[in-house]
Amino acid sequence: MKQIAIIGSGNLAEALARAVAAADGLRLVQLFARNAARGGEVAALARTEWTDDPRRLARADLYLIAVSDRAVGEVAARLPIPDGAAVAHTAGSVPLAALPERFARRGVFYPMQTFTRGREVDFGEIPVFIEASSPALCDELEAFARRLSRTVIRSDSAQRAKVHLAAVFACNFANRMYALGERIARDAGLDFGVLKPLVTETAAKARDARSPLDVQTGPAARHDAATLERHLALLADDPEMQELYSKISQNIWETSKRT
Amino acid sequence: MKQIAIIGSGNLAEALARAVAAADGLRLVQLFARNAARGGEVAALARTEWTDDPRRLARADLYLIAVSDRAVGEVAARLPIPDGAAVAHTAGSVPLAALPERFARRGVFYPMQTFTRGREVDFGEIPVFIEASSPALCDELEAFARRLSRTVIRSDSAQRAKVHLAAVFACNFANRMYALGERIARDAGLDFGVLKPLVTETAAKARDARSPLDVQTGPAARHDAATLERHLALLADDPEMQELYSKISQNIWETSKRT
Repeated sequence: MKQIAIIGSGNLAEALARAVAAADGLRLVQLFARNAARGGEVAALARTEWTDDPRRLARADLYLIAVSDRAVGEVAARLPIPDGAAVAHTAGSVPLAALPERFARRGVFYPMQTFTRGREVDFGEIPVFIEASSPALCDELEAFARRLSRTVIRSDSAQRAKVHLAAVFACNFANRMYALGERIARDAGLDFGVLKPLVTETAAKARDARSPLDVQTGPAARHDAATLERHLALLADDPEMQELYSKISQNIWETSKRT
Repeated sequence: MKQIAIIGSGNLAEALARAVAAADGLRLVQLFARNAARGGEVAALARTEWTDDPRRLARADLYLIAVSDRAVGEVAARLPIPDGAAVAHTAGSVPLAALPERFARRGVFYPMQTFTRGREVDFGEIPVFIEASSPALCDELEAFARRLSRTVIRSDSAQRAKVHLAAVFACNFANRMYALGERIARDAGLDFGVLKPLVTETAAKARDARSPLDVQTGPAARHDAATLERHLALLADDPEMQELYSKISQNIWETSKRT
């Protein structure tokens, strides 16, 4: 698997295209994407050619389908990918079986990270979860993945679905907590910048800890009911925020009691 | 305010003692703490003397009370602090009025950060919120605070209470999301280490963004109802986790629709 084609032009497609283009021993032969503006942009970043014409799809050893979760099956079915080629999708929560059976060599290559356009990430640090329709293909896919990342984990669709759910909590929901913090700070006349040193240190502490449970701080963790009451009173005008505050605090309180 | 005494031996007291000891133009004259083991430990870290005997409390220009929120008033009332000295507590959610009125020079010095024993932080980066019983004392407290931090913000008790609540979301609740991610990863046979690159990048993205709203990713942000359903099904055995997943996703979904 040396000749790679990438399908898609979203945030993950961009990060993947850059990583493949920069990896020793791999060649990104083409970026296929329907969105002309983004397709051209991503292809330029990865110094490869771009097409949106299925008839001009390049020959490759591996076709990486980096499109939105719900489009994986349809895109794979529609494109004239040669039957003998390896095809892998990149979606954490989508089972291997979403790829059409006509491909004997089906796989999954899920890099667990949050990707943003224009933002470079160190792909070598990203845990990549792989799965394949045969043990031989899994070996091939692993060799490919190891050219990009130092952490490659074989994982079936059921385990990967859980890993993806874990990522939603640790990333998407954590970011939402920053956003709710920002909303309250704004209400007090301050902008998000004031919270940034705290956000950075919170993540750094967790990174250096065995478990986030070991570095949990705050009123719920120390069973400070008086502060919880004051906070709930401050949120009296916003029942949704109040409910989130209450549920998450309760969840922290109970664990802190048990340990 | 050159001669500083610190009351307390918790995580914040430790960070504060180290910062004061290291600051130009300040002298940490004493650490007062009831807990002998921790008191000695923190005093050693900050190269100062320690006592637990109220009769041996040193003379200082400023007494910083870094004890638990609920103990602030009682500790200030009990200690034989000279009437003319300045006294400041360090608790975000505790009003200035919690300090006894016999002190004419009362203040608050709240560094918004999450502190862990044994962990050094760059105090210069931490936003410090100050408040004082008179404009003149506020000037003095600000001059003191600027020796420790580049970001000093004058803030009354009402604003500071909101800022503290914002910090609970951005720090304590974000860390809880990491812990819930860890719980799911463990259930899939993986440990928290696998989530660390994601946790680090999520915080780095928010730090580099104007607002966390601009970098929100995940199924709720892209209105991917099918993935939300699959995730809720995975949490069928844990109604509490399921409810948190549902409420936070709904909260993200609504904002993503509005913007």
